[in-house]
Amino acid sequence: MERVPVLKIGDFLLVSIQVDMEDQIALQLQEDLSERIVQTGVHGVIIDITALDIVDSFVGRMLSTIAAISKVLDAETVVVGMRPAVAITLVELGLSLNGIRTALNVERGMELLARAREEEFLDGEDDEQPAEDGTAVSS
Amino acid sequence: MERVPVLKIGDFLLVSIQVDMEDQIALQLQEDLSERIVQTGVHGVIIDITALDIVDSFVGRMLSTIAAISKVLDAETVVVGMRPAVAITLVELGLSLNGIRTALNVERGMELLARAREEEFLDGEDDEQPAEDGTAVSS
Repeated sequence: MERVPVLKIGDFLLVSIQVDMEDQIALQLQEDLSERIVQTGVHGVIIDITALDIVDSFVGRMLSTIAAISKVLDAETVVVGMRPAVAITLVELGLSLNGIRTALNVERGMELLARAREEEFLDGEDDEQPAEDGTAVSS
Repeated sequence: MERVPVLKIGDFLLVSIQVDMEDQIALQLQEDLSERIVQTGVHGVIIDITALDIVDSFVGRMLSTIAAISKVLDAETVVVGMRPAVAITLVELGLSLNGIRTALNVERGMELLARAREEEFLDGEDDEQPAEDGTAVSS
């Protein structure tokens, strides 16, 4: 059976989708990815769809599901490498990628994840450390 | 036509091979990859073959060719994610991956590339700086 590889690179997981997403492959990917998130403890997932000529409602839903699962496991998802034609088709079909962040390429996706993580971290710090005069620090 | 995406991550390019390598796809990949090496000026190429159940002589030759092309363009190639079964078959078939470095996974591949680069850099420094007694330092 075909399987989409999940690669760990630094503090994130990378999935490059190149094959047609049939039911079984999509389910397997969700399973593999969630296992790897738990196993590695990463906080970011980058899904590269450079190779996809078409993103239909099935693939769109799969991406949303992956993002939702990752979110529950404390990892952000960024979809990168979307072709202009794919973006146009998505809008024409009225498909919105719910809860999915996008970036132009893997490097920008990495930056986005790093920034998101930093902000979250700062927010967390603010909650725990009130300023010296006793008022909370606004972020 | 199917096309294998070439992703730039930091100082290297990543290629994850998931589809059957027919002639046309392999040629296109060689072309895309060499163009991206020149365009980005990276010094490392990582080829992930986690998804491959089989590496026959055609794929083996393609990997060697890619490594040779990259070498000419001043980039090292590391093949990562080889399955145990694939390694066994390679040896049984008497196929040696000429001129190809391998690593267990992408992260180890990155380490290998970074180390190779460092050593090369140090060697380059030695060439320029003769030892104090006037003899050249052998590297």
